[in-house]
Amino acid sequence: MPEKPKTIAEIETPAVLIDVDRAAANIAKAQAHANRVGVKLRPHIKTHKLPFWAKTQVEAGAAGITCQKIGEAEVMADAGMADIFLPYNILGEAKLARLLALHRRVTLSVTADSTETVAGLARTFTDAARRLSVLVECETGMSRCGVETPAEAVTVAKAIAAAPGLEFGGLMTYPAAGKADEAERRLRETRDALAAAGLVCRVMTSGGTPDMWRSQDATVVTEYRPGTYIYMDRSQIARGAATLGDCALTVLATVVSRPTASRAVLDAGSKAFSSDTLGLPDFGEIVGRPDIRVTKLSEEHGVLTVPEGVSVAIGERVRVIPNHACVVSNLFDEVYLVSGDRVVDVLPVAARGKVT
Amino acid sequence: MPEKPKTIAEIETPAVLIDVDRAAANIAKAQAHANRVGVKLRPHIKTHKLPFWAKTQVEAGAAGITCQKIGEAEVMADAGMADIFLPYNILGEAKLARLLALHRRVTLSVTADSTETVAGLARTFTDAARRLSVLVECETGMSRCGVETPAEAVTVAKAIAAAPGLEFGGLMTYPAAGKADEAERRLRETRDALAAAGLVCRVMTSGGTPDMWRSQDATVVTEYRPGTYIYMDRSQIARGAATLGDCALTVLATVVSRPTASRAVLDAGSKAFSSDTLGLPDFGEIVGRPDIRVTKLSEEHGVLTVPEGVSVAIGERVRVIPNHACVVSNLFDEVYLVSGDRVVDVLPVAARGKVT
Repeated sequence: MPEKPKTIAEIETPAVLIDVDRAAANIAKAQAHANRVGVKLRPHIKTHKLPFWAKTQVEAGAAGITCQKIGEAEVMADAGMADIFLPYNILGEAKLARLLALHRRVTLSVTADSTETVAGLARTFTDAARRLSVLVECETGMSRCGVETPAEAVTVAKAIAAAPGLEFGGLMTYPAAGKADEAERRLRETRDALAAAGLVCRVMTSGGTPDMWRSQDATVVTEYRPGTYIYMDRSQIARGAATLGDCALTVLATVVSRPTASRAVLDAGSKAFSSDTLGLPDFGEIVGRPDIRVTKLSEEHGVLTVPEGVSVAIGERVRVIPNHACVVSNLFDEVYLVSGDRVVDVLPVAARGKVT
Repeated sequence: MPEKPKTIAEIETPAVLIDVDRAAANIAKAQAHANRVGVKLRPHIKTHKLPFWAKTQVEAGAAGITCQKIGEAEVMADAGMADIFLPYNILGEAKLARLLALHRRVTLSVTADSTETVAGLARTFTDAARRLSVLVECETGMSRCGVETPAEAVTVAKAIAAAPGLEFGGLMTYPAAGKADEAERRLRETRDALAAAGLVCRVMTSGGTPDMWRSQDATVVTEYRPGTYIYMDRSQIARGAATLGDCALTVLATVVSRPTASRAVLDAGSKAFSSDTLGLPDFGEIVGRPDIRVTKLSEEHGVLTVPEGVSVAIGERVRVIPNHACVVSNLFDEVYLVSGDRVVDVLPVAARGKVT
């Protein structure tokens, strides 16, 4: 293992750089906004997958964290996180046993969108010392998981409330892009149907960085679960939730080929950026070189389209803002925390690759 | 760490399963074909990233292996691989130092497509005990790296031949899909231009699983570098290079939600499959259920579109054939080798995530 580099110039490419000053500012800004509008923040760790940032987020005022996989939650519990929400249907004996073990260590909550999921949880937690809080996931436009109607929500919530080891916690949704109003409407409708059935929603949790900034208009939501806000990326800029100056994660890469006047090739491809376009026409842009874009990826090559007359030299090192920061974190074993040109630390991405 | 599962039924999802019988048959078939048509096989390890399969490929008759990154080559050298080709422009002092260290351990060759790349290699290998073989990369339709004309190839090859620590090894290309004939034509033209300049191409290496099967028509190529052929995938089926029955890599996943009659959701998303479409309209198909397709991915969800009347139950486990096997290997820390329903072994993906 080579010594830790002291400056960015010493880092081998490709590498993920995290601008700690920008990330810290993004955390502070989001928490201040949440405090102002009176909603809790429960950041999704999928974006950074690092105990370091999870702790920083909680210290800044977050109510707890959100993880998507039990494996991620186990890493975060090991790192001292005390309140973890897993917005997922946990199924299967092995996973349910791990969930119960985790429940004994931290304040845990999960979701369900079917009575099948509730049945597994109920069976596993019957004799638990404390009840497990289970929220009902509501589909509000994302066309993914979630109950489709208030009536279904009542059915699932009743099953939760009837189980000795479980307690009904409230409602969860992940709103589709641009459908925050629709999500609000459906959550309110569902909450009211549950109230009519005698079921109280303690938590109404929604998510997504873009919607976070409009949370003053969210009258039913008690909690937001933004993920990307800590690093931001091109998809968030495209949605109006961030500026280039907010982007804390960049991929450091080297120009390895310059075959034609209009083409240059980076040593970073889909194994560094992923193939996620998130609706954008290309895969990344170069910091300080807005005229150059990453227009094609293969696994280990990123092709740059270079306008006429623009200089890009073999051996030149660039920093690329990716479309989607979260998936980049999942592709690297370690990230470099930087402040200006200085390397502050090198951290293993502890919750990377936790697929189960 | 739980005990090693004995059967597929005991494996937590999502997980990567490798059918060892199919993979072994794929290796044998490709080697037999190469032997028959008289070309060397130098498999690209990017598909499996496992020393186990690299050894099997060499034992079956491969001339050596191909790696894309020095980090991958270091893993394979540690595992005993003795002949490694790195078809990449290696730039930067840190990487050049690692390359030199690797050269001392194994028979190594690399590529260059510019005199800048050659200059770095020449400087580094001046005093090397053995010369480093450097091939010239030729662009033949992929629009990625590679010299564009025979004249450029001669310039780069002369620079290699003039460096005390280097030797000109021949030509390398990665042909674009469907452009194998064009690649042949350009390679021949370039070889002839080099011969006229007194430069002999010892190796003419081309790549790609689809082209492998037409190698009897390849009159200038001495070596093929197929990668995907060991596992095969939907992209290879689409190109006519494989059948469903050849596919050795599947992603085991669980149905976690069944929100509507036409929609089911798997616990495997882009973090399991990647977002690679490779020109296909969707992201995967279910073994034995050709009517169900993975039509939408987010990081931890795979949405299945289910035709009317088709039964898919919550908790059901399925095996999905992905579009692109190589990128799946890079997303998992370990893979399960299976034979029928039996788990033969669980292997860490040793060369996964080797980005530099």
